[in-house]
Amino acid sequence: MTKKVFFLALILCQCLWGQAQNQKDSLTIRRFFDETLTVSESHNNLRELCKNIGARLSGSPEAEKAVKWAYAKLKSYGLDTVYLQEVKVPRWERGQVETFSVNGKSLRACSLGGSVGTDGVLEGEIIEVRDFEELEKLGKSKIKGKIVFINAPLDPKLIDTFHAYSACGSYRYRGASNASEYGAKAVVIRSLASEHDDFPHTGSMGYAKGAVKIPAMAISTNDADYLEKQLRTGTPQKAKMAMDCQTLPDVTSYNVIAELKGKRNPERILLVGGHLDSWDKGEGAHDDGAGVVHSMEAIRLFKRFGIRPNNTLRCILFMNEENGNRGGETYAKQSTQKGEKHLAALESDRGGLVPRGFSVDAPQSRFAFLQQQKIEDLLKPYNLHVMRKGYGGVDINPLKKYGEQTLIGFLPDPQRYFQYHHSDNDVFENVDRRELELGSASIASLLYLIDKYEFGVVN
Amino acid sequence: MTKKVFFLALILCQCLWGQAQNQKDSLTIRRFFDETLTVSESHNNLRELCKNIGARLSGSPEAEKAVKWAYAKLKSYGLDTVYLQEVKVPRWERGQVETFSVNGKSLRACSLGGSVGTDGVLEGEIIEVRDFEELEKLGKSKIKGKIVFINAPLDPKLIDTFHAYSACGSYRYRGASNASEYGAKAVVIRSLASEHDDFPHTGSMGYAKGAVKIPAMAISTNDADYLEKQLRTGTPQKAKMAMDCQTLPDVTSYNVIAELKGKRNPERILLVGGHLDSWDKGEGAHDDGAGVVHSMEAIRLFKRFGIRPNNTLRCILFMNEENGNRGGETYAKQSTQKGEKHLAALESDRGGLVPRGFSVDAPQSRFAFLQQQKIEDLLKPYNLHVMRKGYGGVDINPLKKYGEQTLIGFLPDPQRYFQYHHSDNDVFENVDRRELELGSASIASLLYLIDKYEFGVVN
Repeated sequence: MTKKVFFLALILCQCLWGQAQNQKDSLTIRRFFDETLTVSESHNNLRELCKNIGARLSGSPEAEKAVKWAYAKLKSYGLDTVYLQEVKVPRWERGQVETFSVNGKSLRACSLGGSVGTDGVLEGEIIEVRDFEELEKLGKSKIKGKIVFINAPLDPKLIDTFHAYSACGSYRYRGASNASEYGAKAVVIRSLASEHDDFPHTGSMGYAKGAVKIPAMAISTNDADYLEKQLRTGTPQKAKMAMDCQTLPDVTSYNVIAELKGKRNPERILLVGGHLDSWDKGEGAHDDGAGVVHSMEAIRLFKRFGIRPNNTLRCILFMNEENGNRGGETYAKQSTQKGEKHLAALESDRGGLVPRGFSVDAPQSRFAFLQQQKIEDLLKPYNLHVMRKGYGGVDINPLKKYGEQTLIGFLPDPQRYFQYHHSDNDVFENVDRRELELGSASIASLLYLIDKYEFGVVN
Repeated sequence: MTKKVFFLALILCQCLWGQAQNQKDSLTIRRFFDETLTVSESHNNLRELCKNIGARLSGSPEAEKAVKWAYAKLKSYGLDTVYLQEVKVPRWERGQVETFSVNGKSLRACSLGGSVGTDGVLEGEIIEVRDFEELEKLGKSKIKGKIVFINAPLDPKLIDTFHAYSACGSYRYRGASNASEYGAKAVVIRSLASEHDDFPHTGSMGYAKGAVKIPAMAISTNDADYLEKQLRTGTPQKAKMAMDCQTLPDVTSYNVIAELKGKRNPERILLVGGHLDSWDKGEGAHDDGAGVVHSMEAIRLFKRFGIRPNNTLRCILFMNEENGNRGGETYAKQSTQKGEKHLAALESDRGGLVPRGFSVDAPQSRFAFLQQQKIEDLLKPYNLHVMRKGYGGVDINPLKKYGEQTLIGFLPDPQRYFQYHHSDNDVFENVDRRELELGSASIASLLYLIDKYEFGVVN
């Protein structure tokens, strides 16, 4: 054989090998989707989590039930190991009383998570602001002794509803502290929701260091519209507010962790996760029951098809994303102390809606790997068309400060998410089976490709 | 000025002109989306159509109400002209009786559109087939005198649910004729639905020439599962079936048409449409209330922003897509007789779900226009990522036989459509406002680009 023929033969071999790999990849991905769409394990798991346990705020008995449920379910999959990681979590309780009325008319309201109670009935005149600038402009003379109504609607023009939500997030989180600076006695915010409806949406708030702790509530968007209209008439609007929520001592809880050990680099971790805790409204179906069952299903799919990963595939169901992120912080710290390295960490915490793609927080070379044509071609048949730079997720984010570089967020379609988020509307019935199952297979597919090629050359 | 400098200046001018056009395009598209997402005209229109009128099968009083409603609404937009085009439509009525029971247990069933009634109670033993092959194999000896249960589930593995639906369509349409060839006395099909639930889904069926006309029903997928299980026990399953549906004489109805006259080529038509009729179950919200309000909103957006199209923009709300396509046929024929030419025809008849893109039935050169990078870049911010070859739509399809070449179908995400389609589940509440409004703006945007560039060079 001449040299020329030899090299031609070598190139041909490489070509065929490449094609075979590519075919193997597309077949594996196809198998993931076939399995989720026919077996519906994610949907069945979500039903159990939502209907047998329901809302599961950190530190609540339901959160502990969820830990036990997830542990047992992951155990039943025959993975290499399933264990709990202790996490001290804050415990805030909504209590029994939660009312808000304006000039005698009762509005649909809920306490914001972390708020102090009213200690009886709190009364005051309402003053409306659209943003913090207006609050500042009105100043102490106008705000003092009043209940500040922060009426900042999510911008409906933003195609990505997460951008609209982010833009208003500080009104919920810092509204009470900012208003108390000017002597407000309480705040009530317009719910951070995308639709005009009757659900008040909760979520976490905090008090700045040294700030006077005043109570904070959210009212439904319909009731915010109503209140806005009443205020525009010029008639003073007197509110009565009562809530007996409180913060109790920290509680011991757990991250639930399951693993398939890597065959080539067992010490290197490929993480997939969502958070097990939820707010105490609805059933935490989209937020983040979906991410929990996505992650469980992703690791189950590897096991189901006998795919031994090169790196250790670790599924983590984090505790306490909603009001403290203690699970994420604890994990990142302890993992680093053990000297672990992560190939990548992928989080699902944007609901169980139809998949669009992934958001990547990584160095350019790794982003380039994910953006290449071969990866695009493999994901396109499943309508996964987004591979963009962006945020990974709250639970995995603490890994960054310990030097981990590759965080990925699963991106379902964002249109419907903020009508459910943190409200009584976030229930199992509002998660579509096919949309949810497609998410699990999408996540498993990307994990498979990352594990196989490790951000190197795709054959 | 030297020649060289002159040409350089010319090139620069063209460049700047191109950039300005591109900026103008992106601003116009942005305006369309801003308007639909804030004003919610499509959603409000859909509410009126669904809640004030509801289901509107061709020839029914509700269909006539829908014609009047659409005419008045389009009139209120101040377009150049709004008129009705007469269409003779078939009239089938479900009647009052519609029952199906098996060994005494009542199942959720509905008559298929076009079926004859049972003329009293029809009784018979059920025999199950999975497909037409099995029917043929069983033959006359096994089929004669029986009620054939065609139990063909939609394939859950297909990512595009329309493929799964199409694969089973013939069981609904031709099931009765095929079974009667072997002496069956009636057929009952498993609903063409993507989920396991309790809704029977109707839809059109027909009788082959010379076929014995036997009654045809659909049962819900849950009841099909139940019946399948009962049959597998080996116990004979005796059914009782009663339905008094009937076909009445044809009725005069209308396509509703509105136009904005073209300023450069008024004689050339750019068509956008959906169908006004629906099945007589639910409210015809996704099928095709969504297409109706999409089309109305698309033409309203041009008017709203003072965009005088180059070609005549014609919005057509077709009558009788569901059981005859007389509206589409009548329009295509009469338009051709008048010597009209169409630049393109775009139909929305796949529901009010979140937009993915468009399906194009056109010559390669026109497809290439739609596929080019500049178009892709303009649509990408709105998550419109699909521009593929494929079917346009039932109403516009007759145009093809008269030589029209460019038919386009709007493609919303297909995952949830077939849980609503042709059933009591197809109601206003199951259409998401943002998903619907994004569809209207997506359609208007593509029409704008097609009208402006007429499949030529995009600046």
